[in-house]
Amino acid sequence: MTSYRDAGVDIAAKMRMIAALKQSVESTQTPAVLAGVGAFGGCLDLSTALPGLQQPVLVVSTDGVGTKTLVAAAVGRFDTVGADLVNHCINDILCQGATPLLFMDYIAAARLEPAIVAPLVEGIANACKEAGIPLLGGETAEMPGVYAEGAFDLAGTIIGVVERDALITGRTIQAGDAILALPSTGLHTNGYSLARKVLAPLGYDARPEALGGQTVGEALLAVHRSYANEIKTLRLGGVEIRGLAHITGGGLWDNLPRILPEGVGAVLWRGSWHVPPIFGLIVERAGIDEHEAFHVFNMGLGMLVVVPQQSVDGALAVVPDARAVGEIVTWDGQGPRVRLE
Amino acid sequence: MTSYRDAGVDIAAKMRMIAALKQSVESTQTPAVLAGVGAFGGCLDLSTALPGLQQPVLVVSTDGVGTKTLVAAAVGRFDTVGADLVNHCINDILCQGATPLLFMDYIAAARLEPAIVAPLVEGIANACKEAGIPLLGGETAEMPGVYAEGAFDLAGTIIGVVERDALITGRTIQAGDAILALPSTGLHTNGYSLARKVLAPLGYDARPEALGGQTVGEALLAVHRSYANEIKTLRLGGVEIRGLAHITGGGLWDNLPRILPEGVGAVLWRGSWHVPPIFGLIVERAGIDEHEAFHVFNMGLGMLVVVPQQSVDGALAVVPDARAVGEIVTWDGQGPRVRLE
Repeated sequence: MTSYRDAGVDIAAKMRMIAALKQSVESTQTPAVLAGVGAFGGCLDLSTALPGLQQPVLVVSTDGVGTKTLVAAAVGRFDTVGADLVNHCINDILCQGATPLLFMDYIAAARLEPAIVAPLVEGIANACKEAGIPLLGGETAEMPGVYAEGAFDLAGTIIGVVERDALITGRTIQAGDAILALPSTGLHTNGYSLARKVLAPLGYDARPEALGGQTVGEALLAVHRSYANEIKTLRLGGVEIRGLAHITGGGLWDNLPRILPEGVGAVLWRGSWHVPPIFGLIVERAGIDEHEAFHVFNMGLGMLVVVPQQSVDGALAVVPDARAVGEIVTWDGQGPRVRLE
Repeated sequence: MTSYRDAGVDIAAKMRMIAALKQSVESTQTPAVLAGVGAFGGCLDLSTALPGLQQPVLVVSTDGVGTKTLVAAAVGRFDTVGADLVNHCINDILCQGATPLLFMDYIAAARLEPAIVAPLVEGIANACKEAGIPLLGGETAEMPGVYAEGAFDLAGTIIGVVERDALITGRTIQAGDAILALPSTGLHTNGYSLARKVLAPLGYDARPEALGGQTVGEALLAVHRSYANEIKTLRLGGVEIRGLAHITGGGLWDNLPRILPEGVGAVLWRGSWHVPPIFGLIVERAGIDEHEAFHVFNMGLGMLVVVPQQSVDGALAVVPDARAVGEIVTWDGQGPRVRLE
C-alpha cells in the first residue's frame, strides 16, 4: 500500500491491519520488484521481469467487481472478491495476448474494518501469487460520507506486456473460424444488481434445489476464473489464437463484437456448452428473456477463443474443458451481428 | 473507458455522456497508443513512447483524492478534482525519477450523473494532456447501495518509466544536503475530513478575510499542483537531485523520512516558505497544534527536493518559486527524525 488515509479511530487495530496487509503484499514480491510497500511509486524492473523483449507494448486494464462486494458483505466472506478482481483484470489483458507483470489495488469504505480489509487483500495477494505477479502497491481509503455504512468498493489495475508482433487484435479473424468457449464458474463479476434483486429475497443461506446443494451465497461468490493457464497452454500447444473475448459487462452481445473485424459476425450453438445452474435460477425468477440474459450475464461463457477450424481438435485435446460453441460467419451489416442458433 | 456498468436508467443521457467521455479520452491519445477506448486492455508501445531505454523500470502509483470529492460535490465543480488526481499521481512517481507514460481512471457513484462524470473526465483528460500522456482507459462504475446518494469516488493509476541507473532512491542523501521546497497551492488532496469539519459551517461561499477575496470553496478546491515541469527543469539544469518527497497523507513527518537513508534526519526552518492562508484558517478553527497541523496538511510544502548545497543557487535560479527550507542533519535514532526550527 503506498498510502493510508487515516480517520483517527482505533489506531492499534489499524496498525495490526497494516502489518497484516504488508505481509500479504510482501508475499507476492518477485525479484523484479525494486520498490514496493512504502515507496511513493512501486518499481518493477521490466528487463528482469520479462527479458529479451524487442518492442514491448504495455497492456493495462482497470476494473472493479461491481456490487459483488454487497454479496460478499452480506455473506461475510471477503477473500473471494479479492481474487475475482485480479482474475478479471488478468483475463482482460490476456485478450490482447499480454503476460501480466504486476497488480495495483484500490480499497475504499466509510470505515476500513480490519476484518474486511485483511481477507480482501489476502484474496488479492493469493490470486497475484497464483499468477506469479507482485501486488506492487495500491491505496486504501477511508471516506465517511462517500460510502454507505458497511459497504466498500474494490478496484484494481493490472499491467502486462506483450511483444508488439505478438499482440492479439482479432484482425485476422475470418468467416469459417471456430469459436471455443472456456467455461465460467458463475456470474464472475457482472450482473450482480439483478442477481441480488431476485435472489436476496430467498436468502443467501438458502439451498434451492436447482443449485444441487450449494447455497445461493456460495453460487454467487464463485470466484471469477483466470484463463491465464489455458491460454498459455493453447499457445504452447501451437494453437493460432486469432481473437479472445472476455465475456463481462454487456455479455455476449457487447463483448464478442469488440474483436470482430469488418464483414464478419458469429453464430453460437445453444446447448453446446454447460450453463451453470445459478443462471437458470436467476433468469427464471427475474422473468427475463434469452436475449436479455445474454446481455446481463456471461451464461457460462467465460472467455471466447477464436481459432482456425484446423486447430479445434488440438485445442480441445490440450484444454479439456474448452468447448467448440460456434463459428465465425460473414455478416453484411444487416440484422444481429452475433446470434444464437 | 474499457467498460461501463449499466443500471439501466436514462440510457439516452448515458449514451451522450459516453460519447463526451470518449471525446475527452481520445483528445489525450499519443502516437504510442495502439489501443485505447473500447479495447479489453489499453495498449501503449513502450518503444515508441520512450525510445532507447536500456533497462526500463516501471514506476506505478494508485491513488485517490479522498473526501475532496465531497467538497467538489458541495460546490458543484468537478473538473478540478479530476486534475488533482492526475497531478497527485504524477508527483508520486516523479519521486522515483520516472517520466509518466499513461493514466487510468476509476470513477464510481451510486448513480453516474453526466453533469458530474463529464467534467470529471474532462479535468482528468486536460491534466493528462498537460503532462503529455494518454488517458489510456479506466472504469466507470454505477453502484447503488455502495455509495451514498450524491457522493462519488475517484481514483486512478499512473504508470511511468525510468532508466534503472536514473532511479531516484534517496540513498545518496547525506548530512549537510539542502532541502528545497516547491510550493503547494493549498491542501492538494489531503486533510479534507478535518478541513470540511471546521470550514463547512462557514459555508463554501463565504469569503473570510484571511483568504483575501477567495471563497472557502475556491481555496479548498485549489488544484493539486504537478511538479513535473520543475523537476524536469532542475534535471536539465544539471542539478543533482538526491531525493524527492511528495508531501501527502501523513504530512511532513511521515513523508520526508520515506526517502532518508539510515543515520540522517532533517531540520526545516519555520518562516522560510509561504504557508497559504487556508492552512492558518483551518488550524485556528480546529484548534490543533503545529505538530498535528504538519501531520494532517502539507502546510505549503508541496514537494521537497534534496540537493547538494552547491546546487542550491543554480536550482533557485531555474525554478524561481522554489525555496531553501532546511537541511539534512545527522540523526542518532533518538528524538524526532524531522523537526522544525
